[in-house]
Amino acid sequence: MSNTLSKRGPGRPRKGSDGNFINTRQALIKAGLAALTEKGYSYTGIEEILRAANVPKGSFYHYFGSKEAFGEVLIEAYNAYFMKKLSRWFLDDSMSPLQRLQAFVDDAKQGMQKFAFRRGCLVGNLGQEMAALPDGFRVLLQEVFLEWEKRTARLLQEAATVGEISPNLNTQKMARFFWIGWEGAVLRAKLEESAAPLDLFAHTFISLVQHS
Amino acid sequence: MSNTLSKRGPGRPRKGSDGNFINTRQALIKAGLAALTEKGYSYTGIEEILRAANVPKGSFYHYFGSKEAFGEVLIEAYNAYFMKKLSRWFLDDSMSPLQRLQAFVDDAKQGMQKFAFRRGCLVGNLGQEMAALPDGFRVLLQEVFLEWEKRTARLLQEAATVGEISPNLNTQKMARFFWIGWEGAVLRAKLEESAAPLDLFAHTFISLVQHS
Repeated sequence: MSNTLSKRGPGRPRKGSDGNFINTRQALIKAGLAALTEKGYSYTGIEEILRAANVPKGSFYHYFGSKEAFGEVLIEAYNAYFMKKLSRWFLDDSMSPLQRLQAFVDDAKQGMQKFAFRRGCLVGNLGQEMAALPDGFRVLLQEVFLEWEKRTARLLQEAATVGEISPNLNTQKMARFFWIGWEGAVLRAKLEESAAPLDLFAHTFISLVQHS
Repeated sequence: MSNTLSKRGPGRPRKGSDGNFINTRQALIKAGLAALTEKGYSYTGIEEILRAANVPKGSFYHYFGSKEAFGEVLIEAYNAYFMKKLSRWFLDDSMSPLQRLQAFVDDAKQGMQKFAFRRGCLVGNLGQEMAALPDGFRVLLQEVFLEWEKRTARLLQEAATVGEISPNLNTQKMARFFWIGWEGAVLRAKLEESAAPLDLFAHTFISLVQHS
């Protein structure tokens, strides 16, 4: 994620509460990601972002111009963070392709556990509340899912090549099925405050594609 | 749905804009269901419910006491409506069990199309925003999913009995898998303003359980 952020310019260095110089823009993005993964966009106010990041209002508008522009930057930042996560697991050839998918799932479980299942997927949250969002978000969010699906289809193609799944399975369709269902699993994990829905969805998915 | 509502007492009859006598409590519930399926609970204000139902504030508090109590009634009303829908399709023995599941999916697609994919599943929306909701909603929402899963497990058991799916499949687990994924599909249908995610999820699910 830091790569994406540094591409957008350093902002003004500022001393944080821990005594380190931190970047104002980066602090706002960090607070925004926390709020949007927890509560979504509509219910998040700029004021609470400013409080969480300890940044004055003027600074926010200097960096982002509007809440909508801020939201777009957050979608991009979240996607960059997530694509890095997918690369880390999906390209690790010390494991078989389906083991890599499982490793991603285990990592995501730990991520949700870390925040006591209060935070879910930013892209899923915003998809859910799409009717109340600026319409420009729709294309951005769809593009994000397409990228994740493309990566996953490639992984399933590798699984077919090494014989973990049947070569007759439509890997693109299965990748789309995975991400459609995964967002439901994240939603349910938040509701149940438990990793069980993530496990059940992933295990069942892997078992079904192995035996079809 | 009307059955559930009438169980809770008729309220004061009142002439609606279409000249018919309607029930104030029922009008508030109808407006609440529309708002919560579209935007969820947190972002819905009592004022817009009052405006949509053309009801004064005092009436609202007469019937519901608080927004939280109103939310609980809406979860119950939505579940009653949904269980009726499930019964209608899942118990129709003019079709095979998997055909009944497909018929439910087709009905749900029409329901989403009718509101241009702006409205999703009330229970899914509230699950998504659980971190911002009154904690009492958590148990209610989980109970709703359990009821839907129980019904679906029974349907899949019938599918196993007539040989549509393997008797080795764990029907309870598959029913839970279905509802976890289905909520993801509804979310994605809202995002894409299209029934395609519902179709892809349902077709793939049915095909996977048939071939496992």
